[in-house]
Amino acid sequence: MNNIAVILVNPQMGENIGAAARAMLNFGLKDLRIVNPRDGWPNQKAIDMAKGAREVVDNARVFFSIEEACHDVEKLYATTARRRDMNKMIVSLPDLPELITQNDNLKSAIVFGCEKSGLTNSEIALADAIINIPSSEEYGSINLAQAVNITCYQLFISEYEFSNEQFKSEDVCNKEQLHNFLEVLESELEKGSFFKNKDKKDSMSLNIKNIFSRSNLTNQEVNILFGIIKSLTKKR
Amino acid sequence: MNNIAVILVNPQMGENIGAAARAMLNFGLKDLRIVNPRDGWPNQKAIDMAKGAREVVDNARVFFSIEEACHDVEKLYATTARRRDMNKMIVSLPDLPELITQNDNLKSAIVFGCEKSGLTNSEIALADAIINIPSSEEYGSINLAQAVNITCYQLFISEYEFSNEQFKSEDVCNKEQLHNFLEVLESELEKGSFFKNKDKKDSMSLNIKNIFSRSNLTNQEVNILFGIIKSLTKKR
Repeated sequence: MNNIAVILVNPQMGENIGAAARAMLNFGLKDLRIVNPRDGWPNQKAIDMAKGAREVVDNARVFFSIEEACHDVEKLYATTARRRDMNKMIVSLPDLPELITQNDNLKSAIVFGCEKSGLTNSEIALADAIINIPSSEEYGSINLAQAVNITCYQLFISEYEFSNEQFKSEDVCNKEQLHNFLEVLESELEKGSFFKNKDKKDSMSLNIKNIFSRSNLTNQEVNILFGIIKSLTKKR
Repeated sequence: MNNIAVILVNPQMGENIGAAARAMLNFGLKDLRIVNPRDGWPNQKAIDMAKGAREVVDNARVFFSIEEACHDVEKLYATTARRRDMNKMIVSLPDLPELITQNDNLKSAIVFGCEKSGLTNSEIALADAIINIPSSEEYGSINLAQAVNITCYQLFISEYEFSNEQFKSEDVCNKEQLHNFLEVLESELEKGSFFKNKDKKDSMSLNIKNIFSRSNLTNQEVNILFGIIKSLTKKR
């Protein structure tokens, strides 16, 4: 991620620059370059919106042209929302990480156009490839900071090792405790004439066992359940 | 996507509500529900930020509690940036689409907490699963609208059929034209004593052939290249 820069070309609103900086740092990018920001630089609104990503705003570099901004860049990727008829490789954003990984020893930059109209065709012509940001056909106009945000997110998750898990507790109850609870519950249900229909008792009992067996209960939670039964049966 | 709602709990800034609405429509979601917006409702800042997603703001429903907001929801997913120690399935955002697809006949909602502190533990306790939004360890505080944005993007791209492609032109030049050009180029280079070092002529010639052969040139572009040679050799 250290080898990837974000270039904003002619951004209009400081708020978007700041929000883009925040999104960059959220996903591990720090090299922000700005070509001709409309309202000059530094910009207080950018600082305010960046919140904890102040360092990205403070270290941002401002240039007079896209050519200057990418002087040390070896691979330049131009983002677009709508299709451009240009003789150039078009890659959907979800596949950008793979493209960058193919050249991961090279300095890359991802370029974003201004809020109003995106990149011009002559800016896109400078790029090695066009990055198409997928969006709904109904409304494809993505806010500048949001475009930077999903691009950085897409790059980040391709490197991030994530895992899905049940919460791991040291305190998971053992089966004996669970069965003790189920016995107490059934016995109290018998007393309360819960199993009126004898034919359905077995399937009812099975359902109850299922509910609590799949719930990954901790000792603490089983104790709470014991307490609930005790409390509910107090008046009998 | 029609079966997925976004619920914002106690959002503070109208700008974030509007930006979230815009991101939703960018990625095909429309069902926005808001629990106790701090600054009341409707909110002009939300309307302004939503831009072309005005319909999402106009159709948003406001509730007094998260329980009311999800009354018709069958699967509730609570988003968090930091880990919570709660006995509940934790799924990383990139795997949320798969989780939703497993229940795609059910009404789902994704819940986002307020800007300052996210969802409370008691709000998370209502959810079927916790959705962890991956972010950098250095700065994990994601703006509310940005969190909605990447969540909607992640859902959208899982359904979206994207393809990477070279620009397909009807006008791609055939090899004869390309070879004609290469011949003219080489002959002019000979005249200009480009191949001074006879030992290197073959590898030089190979390189030149390579450059133009991999460039997916159109007829129009080959004509431009002919013109360039003509123009450059005019003074001889």
